Amino acid sequence: MHTDLVAALDIGGTKIAGALVDGQGGILVRAQRATPAQEDGDTVMGAVEEVLRELTASPLWSRARALGIGSAGPVDASAGTVSPVNVPGWRGYPLVERVRAATGDLPVELIGDGVAITAAEHWQGAARGHDNALCMVVSTGVGGGLVLNGQLHPGPTGNAGHIGHISVDIDGDPCPCGSRGCVERIASGPNIARRALENGWQPGPDGDTSAAAVAAAARAGDAVALASFERAAQALAAGIAATATLVEIDIAVIGGGVGKAGDVLFAPLRAALKDYATLSFVQRLTVTPAQMGTDAGLVGSAAAALARRPSVTSA
Amino acid sequence: MHTDLVAALDIGGTKIAGALVDGQGGILVRAQRATPAQEDGDTVMGAVEEVLRELTASPLWSRARALGIGSAGPVDASAGTVSPVNVPGWRGYPLVERVRAATGDLPVELIGDGVAITAAEHWQGAARGHDNALCMVVSTGVGGGLVLNGQLHPGPTGNAGHIGHISVDIDGDPCPCGSRGCVERIASGPNIARRALENGWQPGPDGDTSAAAVAAAARAGDAVALASFERAAQALAAGIAATATLVEIDIAVIGGGVGKAGDVLFAPLRAALKDYATLSFVQRLTVTPAQMGTDAGLVGSAAAALARRPSVTSA
Repeated sequence: MHTDLVAALDIGGTKIAGALVDGQGGILVRAQRATPAQEDGDTVMGAVEEVLRELTASPLWSRARALGIGSAGPVDASAGTVSPVNVPGWRGYPLVERVRAATGDLPVELIGDGVAITAAEHWQGAARGHDNALCMVVSTGVGGGLVLNGQLHPGPTGNAGHIGHISVDIDGDPCPCGSRGCVERIASGPNIARRALENGWQPGPDGDTSAAAVAAAARAGDAVALASFERAAQALAAGIAATATLVEIDIAVIGGGVGKAGDVLFAPLRAALKDYATLSFVQRLTVTPAQMGTDAGLVGSAAAALARRPSVTSA
Repeated sequence: MHTDLVAALDIGGTKIAGALVDGQGGILVRAQRATPAQEDGDTVMGAVEEVLRELTASPLWSRARALGIGSAGPVDASAGTVSPVNVPGWRGYPLVERVRAATGDLPVELIGDGVAITAAEHWQGAARGHDNALCMVVSTGVGGGLVLNGQLHPGPTGNAGHIGHISVDIDGDPCPCGSRGCVERIASGPNIARRALENGWQPGPDGDTSAAAVAAAARAGDAVALASFERAAQALAAGIAATATLVEIDIAVIGGGVGKAGDVLFAPLRAALKDYATLSFVQRLTVTPAQMGTDAGLVGSAAAALARRPSVTSA
């Protein structure tokens, strides 16, 4: 028997990936191009169309019943447009309309990349079985998404869960977004590295000043490196606690490069959560590393499309 | 024709109110007792039972199809228990079971008081017609509730929307909840008054040091009074912006005593929102005063019970 499939696109500032995904999250066909991020909008779209051409050329394409797109944000799901910060040629770009033109009349579901990751972790990863969850990517930026009442909560425009840009320090440092003291401004990889350097951390002989290098120094006991991770953990804890206090999540899943730092991040994060998640109904909140790998964006975009097309075989 | 009704209880630290409410939010029968807040738990329950006896004695009681309870929190809707901060005799008190024992087998819906207010504003007040809204009470404390995707979002335990205890200043003053820099610690009425006094504000000849007196001084141009409201507005703006960034609300409704301060609060609040609500998808966020009066808790509790019993006549 031939089961139905879902097509998925994962659009970021570095690469554009596409896949045909089955009802168990298995990737049967995949295609990928580098994102020509500094080119004009139509050139970027050309790369998307190349990925779609590879997918539609597959003999399996005829089984695709829906198409999910997870894109770097902000997105506007209600308008079908995207304006990824790192793709300046796309501002209010009508991505859904252009994808429809390239693929026929499949139903298309557009969500932000943080929401897509969340869909993947909820379907197959660390948030499986949790009806109320926050999933985060802590990396160059800090993004996220929410599962509420057992369902993905993209919000009307597909951007909900944007925890990186909530302020946890109202008098804090200006954030490129225009606000102050955002979680991202304190906890992203580049900010962990910046703070360590500002406070006197010395990189090793290879000159590596990445957050991963700070994490290695922290594991070796460097006090300044440890303190920079502790400050990041404090901001993340406050943001996670705020989310739980507002919408009653019971788990926060953390992925991305910084999320791979292990105990250097998670030990101070769990300690700081006790400081900020104080009300009775948020005290059982747990934090855990993400389980999905680099295909999370594709799998999650497929999951979101599946959720809107429940008739697609999913068992 | 006799339409169905809903019974409602609004339980606070000062009073216990009960009502029979029709499908348009009209209150047909009401009863009220002072809360014996410092007495033992069964004495407090005795006051609730007196209110219920008045309601069940009404010839209209036979038309009640469900019972909604909005209670000072924290509550635990999943366990049916309440632990109101200002009623020390109730800790994990089995309110739902005791109410059922007094009223027969009506379906009972328990929610926190902030959630109840939100249900009322969404049904009949300032949030009507908004599918994604935050409603707040800014008073002795700061509470709130959420409407998401057109529906009340109480969360699994009935406490969602607790915006008063999210931290917007991670290094800020300790809050009685155990955290630091909570919205309530900066923006509640007592904290507005405390800050004004600490910074040299002089109350009038009547010695009134309430937030309402600070608001009057601010309206008269007192710089310290104005600054205290501006600081409260900044914290509220950051909390509201965080909520919008996390779940995509498009309106924040503010009630309670401090919410009645008018432009002294709303002018700096709207200005500060521009500073903290920066991402494209939250820039259309508006703030507006609450419209429901002192019956909001009753009407909202009825609305929540109605929402779970859609068969009750609601048109």
